[in-house]
Amino acid sequence: MKSIQRLFEIDPWKIKTHQLDKENRRLQESLTSIGNGYMGMRGNFEESYSGDHHLGTYLAGVWFPDKTRVGWWKNGYPEYFGKVINAVNFTAMSIFVNEQEIDLAKMDVQDFYLELDMEKGLLTRKFTVTIGETSVAFTFERFLSVVKKELAMIQMKAKVLAGQAKIEVISKLDNNIQNEDSNYDEMFWQAIATHEADGRSFLTTQTVANDFGIEQFTITASMAHNLPSDKTTSEPLCMSQHFTFDLKTNEQVTLEKQVLIVTSRDTKAAQQVPFAQQLFNDFGADYAQLKAEHVRAWQKRWELADVLIEGDDAAQQGIRFNLFQLFATYYGEDERLNIGPKGFTGEKYGGATYWDTEAYAVPLYLALAKPEVTKNLLKYRHNQLPQAQHNARQQGLKGALYPMVTFTGVECHNEWEITFEEIHRNGAIAYAIYNYTNYTGDDRYLKQEGLEVLVEIARFWADRVHFSKRTNKYMIHGVTGPNEYENNVNNNWYTNTVATWVLRYTLENYLNYENETSVTISAEEQAHWQEIIEKMYFPVDQELGVFVQHDTFLDKELMSVAELDPIHLPLNQKWSWDHILRSCFIKQADVLQGIYFFGDQFTLEEKRANFEFYEPMTVHESSLSPSIHAILAAELGLEEKALEMYERTARLDLDNYNNDTEDGLHITSMTGSWLAIVQGFAQMKTFGNELSFAPFLPKAWRSYAFHINYRGRLIFVTVNAETVNFRLLEGEPLRFNVYEEQITLNETCSLPLA
Amino acid sequence: MKSIQRLFEIDPWKIKTHQLDKENRRLQESLTSIGNGYMGMRGNFEESYSGDHHLGTYLAGVWFPDKTRVGWWKNGYPEYFGKVINAVNFTAMSIFVNEQEIDLAKMDVQDFYLELDMEKGLLTRKFTVTIGETSVAFTFERFLSVVKKELAMIQMKAKVLAGQAKIEVISKLDNNIQNEDSNYDEMFWQAIATHEADGRSFLTTQTVANDFGIEQFTITASMAHNLPSDKTTSEPLCMSQHFTFDLKTNEQVTLEKQVLIVTSRDTKAAQQVPFAQQLFNDFGADYAQLKAEHVRAWQKRWELADVLIEGDDAAQQGIRFNLFQLFATYYGEDERLNIGPKGFTGEKYGGATYWDTEAYAVPLYLALAKPEVTKNLLKYRHNQLPQAQHNARQQGLKGALYPMVTFTGVECHNEWEITFEEIHRNGAIAYAIYNYTNYTGDDRYLKQEGLEVLVEIARFWADRVHFSKRTNKYMIHGVTGPNEYENNVNNNWYTNTVATWVLRYTLENYLNYENETSVTISAEEQAHWQEIIEKMYFPVDQELGVFVQHDTFLDKELMSVAELDPIHLPLNQKWSWDHILRSCFIKQADVLQGIYFFGDQFTLEEKRANFEFYEPMTVHESSLSPSIHAILAAELGLEEKALEMYERTARLDLDNYNNDTEDGLHITSMTGSWLAIVQGFAQMKTFGNELSFAPFLPKAWRSYAFHINYRGRLIFVTVNAETVNFRLLEGEPLRFNVYEEQITLNETCSLPLA
Repeated sequence: MKSIQRLFEIDPWKIKTHQLDKENRRLQESLTSIGNGYMGMRGNFEESYSGDHHLGTYLAGVWFPDKTRVGWWKNGYPEYFGKVINAVNFTAMSIFVNEQEIDLAKMDVQDFYLELDMEKGLLTRKFTVTIGETSVAFTFERFLSVVKKELAMIQMKAKVLAGQAKIEVISKLDNNIQNEDSNYDEMFWQAIATHEADGRSFLTTQTVANDFGIEQFTITASMAHNLPSDKTTSEPLCMSQHFTFDLKTNEQVTLEKQVLIVTSRDTKAAQQVPFAQQLFNDFGADYAQLKAEHVRAWQKRWELADVLIEGDDAAQQGIRFNLFQLFATYYGEDERLNIGPKGFTGEKYGGATYWDTEAYAVPLYLALAKPEVTKNLLKYRHNQLPQAQHNARQQGLKGALYPMVTFTGVECHNEWEITFEEIHRNGAIAYAIYNYTNYTGDDRYLKQEGLEVLVEIARFWADRVHFSKRTNKYMIHGVTGPNEYENNVNNNWYTNTVATWVLRYTLENYLNYENETSVTISAEEQAHWQEIIEKMYFPVDQELGVFVQHDTFLDKELMSVAELDPIHLPLNQKWSWDHILRSCFIKQADVLQGIYFFGDQFTLEEKRANFEFYEPMTVHESSLSPSIHAILAAELGLEEKALEMYERTARLDLDNYNNDTEDGLHITSMTGSWLAIVQGFAQMKTFGNELSFAPFLPKAWRSYAFHINYRGRLIFVTVNAETVNFRLLEGEPLRFNVYEEQITLNETCSLPLA
Repeated sequence: MKSIQRLFEIDPWKIKTHQLDKENRRLQESLTSIGNGYMGMRGNFEESYSGDHHLGTYLAGVWFPDKTRVGWWKNGYPEYFGKVINAVNFTAMSIFVNEQEIDLAKMDVQDFYLELDMEKGLLTRKFTVTIGETSVAFTFERFLSVVKKELAMIQMKAKVLAGQAKIEVISKLDNNIQNEDSNYDEMFWQAIATHEADGRSFLTTQTVANDFGIEQFTITASMAHNLPSDKTTSEPLCMSQHFTFDLKTNEQVTLEKQVLIVTSRDTKAAQQVPFAQQLFNDFGADYAQLKAEHVRAWQKRWELADVLIEGDDAAQQGIRFNLFQLFATYYGEDERLNIGPKGFTGEKYGGATYWDTEAYAVPLYLALAKPEVTKNLLKYRHNQLPQAQHNARQQGLKGALYPMVTFTGVECHNEWEITFEEIHRNGAIAYAIYNYTNYTGDDRYLKQEGLEVLVEIARFWADRVHFSKRTNKYMIHGVTGPNEYENNVNNNWYTNTVATWVLRYTLENYLNYENETSVTISAEEQAHWQEIIEKMYFPVDQELGVFVQHDTFLDKELMSVAELDPIHLPLNQKWSWDHILRSCFIKQADVLQGIYFFGDQFTLEEKRANFEFYEPMTVHESSLSPSIHAILAAELGLEEKALEMYERTARLDLDNYNNDTEDGLHITSMTGSWLAIVQGFAQMKTFGNELSFAPFLPKAWRSYAFHINYRGRLIFVTVNAETVNFRLLEGEPLRFNVYEEQITLNETCSLPLA
């Protein structure tokens, strides 16, 4: 039904192509993005490229409050939209061969090859250009060190294959850059200082002033090379080092560019140049050594996290690509950071920190990284509690409302139906606290920071509900559920469910930890919450045996996506918004999201009835949709549906499923393929402090395997056509359930596949 | 509860003040706007004014398609927003006394006086400035001829009261102007040509190119004076004539500036200068004569339309101000024009042509002007039927959807909840056809153009409803009713009512005129419409005895505005949008709008129950709200409520009730005070081809009187404490009902007040 666009070859560890696809450079760039959690960039070429493309380098936590742009202002809208901003282009090298500038958009290119090695975290590129009698073969290699966060290395090799070549390279730190998505075509950077010493160039720039009291970020980009430069030039926003090489046939030169990026997030402006100098000295300039430690660090990550699929290289490549890009975006080192929807791969959707992090990324990081990584994600929200209280106040409500999009915690989004109404996001913030506590068995966060956050979220819900006299029920009117193809609905079952759960979970834990926590809930407030819990209204249809997505949903003209002429798909490109809203079609899991979150509270029959009712009406036009459906389909034994959903999430970007990957990768959705395999195919569950599995193997696969961290253990799980095998790689023996039977894992344990 | 801001003195015929209120110049400017249906302007000063103010001159039907600006694009949004654009400032005169420029923002001013004479359509101003030993008294008079539409006259008198004065005047046609509401700070005008001949200056300019295929307007502004100029200067966008007067004490000079504005709406660009030359010759330059015919024409308008109120000068001033500004905006001469929400008094809300015209202005023009005026408003919509079909197509629907805001008929508004969902507007377009036909008794429009429009609107509704299987009813989901404080609701009673009425009215008239009309409705389509009519769902609550505003409205926390702490008012400035949406509070008549439109279809008990239920929840934050409530309150004998509502509508702008009149006047709401008196206090009704009255007199008033045109008669109605008197000024004797008793009016007729 959907068409795919596949630019790169299938390979289990590599994203590679021999085609320079000028028509799709933006898509190529997105798919060859690299990052180290501290900084990242799209797969831009080092040398100038005059064709259509999108130059993008981004620094984590460095952003700009762009004045809100809106057609029609509504009271309560935020004043600015926080944007990930395009920062200094430090890979830039203008290259000339015999006075002619290399520009692949305009030249005939031979032997082009582009490769992202996901195992090692290396981006390489090769091509040969011929100018007159002269042919030169270029090779580039680039990495952003995951060991030394401030460090980027670029290596260029040029070899003359025929003729004689005068090769000039102007290697730059170029901050003459703009955001494509700037609301008012503003430049976000201004010059501060340039400095040269010891053959090193230092360019210090600052984000321009703003009207919103947001800090201006200062960054210093610096570079050094393995060869002395002929001359240097310096402009306010750009520094250059010039190199000239006169080469004969078969002669070769290797130019290594070492870049350090220091920001005022860690180092005061005045200290940045000395600090960078110090780092140059500390890090050394041995390319091979710096590369080797970087490669080792990536291999270590894979040892903890790799998922292996035999029998389907496309699926194998898909999940590794997703994990690679996730880890390139966030590996939990910095509690001031979160996971933006495009990571370091684009500008669209601005901001960082959607509820995606808590709902979709936390389960993965819990299983694939140390608990501290997830704890840092929780702390990020705790740090922003005052801003969340501010957001609630903006709506005239008590407690705390976590934002839809933010950097600081203050809401940035400005569509009323999202900003003010998609408040279920507040539930996901609370759910992540439960998830962390339940998964790790560590209640220290819950009883300290956790309860502070929970109580304020609970207060928000208790104030946001209203009492409907004629039904004698509490209700929540005017919300947008996870299915954003309905706006301003009443009594969204998911929202009512998650709100009630927050009140109950908070009350329970408050009573558990009353003597250990600093928060207080008055008896009156407790009684009020209890009343809301008891009298909350949940739309249910007894006849159909389903939870009703929201009031009046069943009054719609109900039909399945299969009954719809495919010319109408995707709806978000074919239908006007009202048409989408009044149709029955669902963008992503809504009732089913609740059933997934609280999977231990519903019977298999309830799950089946709701899945069979809602999934056929679901168009999965959110990148977050397929994974939840894969998990539930697997649980219900709908293996084909589960695999279909896996395929849709695993290669979403690699196959440009939604036709928008040129804008950047769907980073937060990349957890979906992992969730589909681990929580779906393997049916790993952790409800109620109990670990369990119930794996099946998709018919097309020979086997799959994955690692999980669970309460101090590292476990390797392999599922093939006959058996499911568990191997304890680290930690104490562990008891858990497989197909509802308890086993104890000491070293290894094999069971027949059900 | 609401505070008022009254800048001008109470006077039955004049808007006048002795205060130069520098803090409120924008408000003063709005309230001293003048217009002649062809062009108009805010009450800007002729001479330079450096303080805060808003320069604004507008030409009817001359507009620019400003590229849509939106925070988040939704599929189906229009590409541009059509804007009334600020045009050449032709009153401009830079004035210098002994080398010092006159600028009231910076000078001490004596004897300031500003007056808009509504009876005569004249704007005058006086002030004295003293510079050193020299005092000069200035007087200005300005009018836009309602006899010769292209003509504007400005007269300046300067008299030296003390000392000697060298007075220099640089009289300009200045097109260096921008719209305050330009989306991208663009200048909308470019220079074409300047021309000078016979002491006349001609400045030709054109709207800049656009990407939307919208015609570029060319206009020629030209000026001549009663005195020869010393010199002329000419820049691409500005022409000037310079005058110097050396005056001694008690000497006086009178400078008359005659301006003609010709546009490409009527005259091709190349013909504009010759045509303007011709007009100069035809019109002559006799200021007194041109003024006299203008004043006579205004007086003629008042003879047909004046409303007299004895005992309340504020109320008297209010209604005359409203009628003056309405007629200054539109007097029906040009079927290509409609009534924009700000007329010629501001830029806000851009565009022209809201449903206000059909719902609120048509009844007034029917009664106060010849039927042709209203017919031109109907033809305007008929002319735009293809564009209305385009709008329906944009939403994937059949038939025609008239736009929320437009110039061409193509929708310009871009809030999804309005653009796509406030579709009840389509009903008002049909209602105006009924209203015209029923009021005039003339069915020629109905059976020709009228049916063409009706059938396409009916087709829209027939496609927009859906069938709800479980209720066996047709429904309309996803709408915004007249109460814009609810968005995306289901089964808005008003919308369902007006949609069903359109289907029924169209079918009935199609069957009536089947042999006389060119439109065809197949038997199958007729049957389908009939089924919708029979099975339409209307939310009703038997217990409360009310029509329910929309599904789930009664689940809200219901309370009256009186129970709300006034610090929350106005809601649209104090509450975030979600808060407004989920509250029970109502912006303007919604269910009651339907009861008003179809007043002959409901019993008095139904009207009372609904009024008593909904009015207390209504905040009247739309300028369109009070009039409908005044009418219904009067019918229900709620005299105090009716008068309260009258006061709120009559002096909305004069007392700056909504605190936004500085942006311009609420032109389309200005019919409200007339509706409140005639359809409210006098209870004039015309349902079913029957004219009737049932007047009452507000206690505070001694009397009120008004004129109405009805089927060839001009009737003058006077209501005082004892009697209601009818006088037939023109036309044949007429039978109608007063207090449900039939009378026949031959010349005059008096009845005791009930």
